[in-house]
Amino acid sequence: MTNPLSNTDRTRHRRLREQGRTDPGDLRAVLAAGLVAHLGLVNDGWPMVVPTSYGFDETTLYLHGSVASVSLRADSPVCVTITLADGLVLARSVFEHALNYRSAMVYGYPRVVTDPDEILTGLRLLSEHMAPGQWDYVRQPSRKELAATRLLALPLAEASVKIRTGPPDDGDTPDADLGLWAGELPLVSTWQQPVPDPALPPAIPVPAHIAARAGTIAGGPDCPGAPD
Amino acid sequence: MTNPLSNTDRTRHRRLREQGRTDPGDLRAVLAAGLVAHLGLVNDGWPMVVPTSYGFDETTLYLHGSVASVSLRADSPVCVTITLADGLVLARSVFEHALNYRSAMVYGYPRVVTDPDEILTGLRLLSEHMAPGQWDYVRQPSRKELAATRLLALPLAEASVKIRTGPPDDGDTPDADLGLWAGELPLVSTWQQPVPDPALPPAIPVPAHIAARAGTIAGGPDCPGAPD
Repeated sequence: MTNPLSNTDRTRHRRLREQGRTDPGDLRAVLAAGLVAHLGLVNDGWPMVVPTSYGFDETTLYLHGSVASVSLRADSPVCVTITLADGLVLARSVFEHALNYRSAMVYGYPRVVTDPDEILTGLRLLSEHMAPGQWDYVRQPSRKELAATRLLALPLAEASVKIRTGPPDDGDTPDADLGLWAGELPLVSTWQQPVPDPALPPAIPVPAHIAARAGTIAGGPDCPGAPD
Repeated sequence: MTNPLSNTDRTRHRRLREQGRTDPGDLRAVLAAGLVAHLGLVNDGWPMVVPTSYGFDETTLYLHGSVASVSLRADSPVCVTITLADGLVLARSVFEHALNYRSAMVYGYPRVVTDPDEILTGLRLLSEHMAPGQWDYVRQPSRKELAATRLLALPLAEASVKIRTGPPDDGDTPDADLGLWAGELPLVSTWQQPVPDPALPPAIPVPAHIAARAGTIAGGPDCPGAPD
């Protein structure tokens, strides 16, 4: 991801250009901060948008699911969108209201990963993105589980990143004379204290990597995988 | 929304059936709790997934945007998905890891709203869903602003709702003997204290309807529009 983000017809920023980003570091930061991707595909002529988990490295986005899933067919074009809502932009008019957000859209043809080493690497990236530390703590996939899992790889080649931050845009318009309050109402997602499975014997302690996540902000700048 | 949710080929729950819901109240609860929708459409044969705000009433989902936007054409089929990530499900194996979440998918052909009364009603529903209390507090749309805005209406007729809650599913499997901790790591989104626009004169107080939202949970059971 050392090249600038692609500039195709689909990913060129036509509207609200001030929100468009072309630095691959911004793409990586949005991917690192997000938790759920929305996978879009075309199924019998209809769009279908499925929430799903994901992982990534420098060049590839990994998605996984059941081999029985309609949404994980290869060789059909997909659009994968990851969005973080960072807060409301409260303006002096309804029209100027907006959302502060970070969003990445990745377009491409995914391939089904068949190489056993890449399957394990991709699943590990996915697991570590969602639940850092768990891959080495819990039982890793069995041969049977691997056979029931489909892993898709999507190149991080054609992507669009949009980010909006800051106050409303109408502070220097005639609406500023209306005497109304305006500003931002930030929204923050926080990991809570772990809740033990009721089936768990009481003597098993919460592992440090899980306990350490409680109280931290999900998608904050210090999240795992965020750029330096 | 007094009828059960539709049961078409697209919305029938084929996999993970225990997560499927057929009560229209669940659809309404997910719509009330969500903030950002992911609008999926087909553009030149490619899927396109765009984050967007929304509003709704008993029968209709409203989306809006610029008349110049590619994603707001009518008479093309859409899939609108709203997802809330409620936490990680930390199991004893990588394979059984999951997300606790609430998700709604709505399929249909949106229509462009042209009736002036319905445009105002729809925009008000959208505004009040995103930022309750702002419609009556700030300047409402001018004729020129209305002309620049496209409002789409999508029937809440064909929808699928999935909800997962609770601990991992492997508490009664041989993996329970591994002696590993397992449980949930909940994720909660909280509205923060309002941040005044730097362009604001200092004498303007934060209105009560904004101040009251700070510290509350976004998408919690007491969010505006949630079912009784």
